[in-house]
Amino acid sequence: MLHRTDARNGIMAGQIEPKLAELGITLPRPMQPIANYVPYVVSGNLVVVSGQVPAIDGKIAITGKVSWGVSVEQAKEAARLCFINVLVHLKAACGGDLDRVKRVVRLGGFVPSPSEFNQQPLGMNGAAGLAVAVFRAGGPH
Amino acid sequence: MLHRTDARNGIMAGQIEPKLAELGITLPRPMQPIANYVPYVVSGNLVVVSGQVPAIDGKIAITGKVSWGVSVEQAKEAARLCFINVLVHLKAACGGDLDRVKRVVRLGGFVPSPSEFNQQPLGMNGAAGLAVAVFRAGGPH
Amino acid sequence: MLHRTDARNGIMAGQIEPKLAELGITLPRPMQPIANYVPYVVSGNLVVVSGQVPAIDGKIAITGKVSWGVSVEQAKEAARLCFINVLVHLKAACGGDLDRVKRVVRLGGFVPSPSEFNQQPLGMNGAAGLAVAVFRAGGPH
Repeated sequence: MLHRTDARNGIMAGQIEPKLAELGITLPRPMQPIANYVPYVVSGNLVVVSGQVPAIDGKIAITGKVSWGVSVEQAKEAARLCFINVLVHLKAACGGDLDRVKRVVRLGGFVPSPSEFNQQPLGMNGAAGLAVAVFRAGGPH
Repeated sequence: MLHRTDARNGIMAGQIEPKLAELGITLPRPMQPIANYVPYVVSGNLVVVSGQVPAIDGKIAITGKVSWGVSVEQAKEAARLCFINVLVHLKAACGGDLDRVKRVVRLGGFVPSPSEFNQQPLGMNGAAGLAVAVFRAGGPH
Repeated sequence: MLHRTDARNGIMAGQIEPKLAELGITLPRPMQPIANYVPYVVSGNLVVVSGQVPAIDGKIAITGKVSWGVSVEQAKEAARLCFINVLVHLKAACGGDLDRVKRVVRLGGFVPSPSEFNQQPLGMNGAAGLAVAVFRAGGPH
């Protein structure tokens, strides 16, 4: 959910980018869209970002299925990387100003895993934890 | 999707709570949120409730995978329990007045099952059936 | 996301139906809803269409799991058929005028497949490709 730009104070330095820096996260530039790929849509004051993959600098960093060679910790890291890539496109959707993001409305994800596995939410926590760290500290939202 | 409170008549008794009572459903109080867990977000007139589990009084009542020891009927019951937990948070989002809910816009769910299974929608019907029973009888919505 | 009818020029012939004709796609009438089944909901200027199956004339045309007897090409075709069925309900939601659709905001889908498979996005491309072909060519949206 977005704040309007005109409702914001342009003088203060941003809050989200310093938070990312604290967390050791540098957002890369968004990759050039490939053909018909649309990385985000703005509808009213909502931004919908397309599904992201656990890529660093455009290369997928973690592949496989949780419990088949991929640990739950790696799955969390993969989800965290996906969310960093969500942030990249979200920043573009906000004209470069992540402080316009009011809150995360819905976070969806898929944790690749075989039939035997049932701890998918633990993987998702890697994305949810980062979302909370970035957007919810520092005041009521 | 929510009605505004001020557009409603506060005199009449609610319609949704009696309907739940008819169905033998008593909504427990929402569990105390754990740390960063956000059970719902209100965005405009939409409420987005986070993923729920088939818990009764905070204890998961049904576990496992459909067709691996869990029957389709049990899966339906699990989905129904999930939706009851959705109602708990939806009620909190509405300030305690479920009659403010205009309609269900989207119902998403996952039916845990092994590769061989393909009747996931039958499980989801346990949630969808309850949603219809609670919110769509008694008048056009 | 919908345009309001009153903001549109009623004189020009539609753009979307001719596009569908070019693609060799004829939209069937929507099937009569079965009991409680709700094929779409309009919320503000958003239309949410319920999950669709790869049916032609009401009969499911492709069944099975990708890589277990169903090829990736067949999965793409199944996703394309699902999206045609989305269009059927979207057209009904727009009072018969698909030109009122401003853009696709979010496309969700499930590609049935066993644990070993990991190319689900290739299947989804069958729906996404048709969405782009129908709604994004011919001008900025």
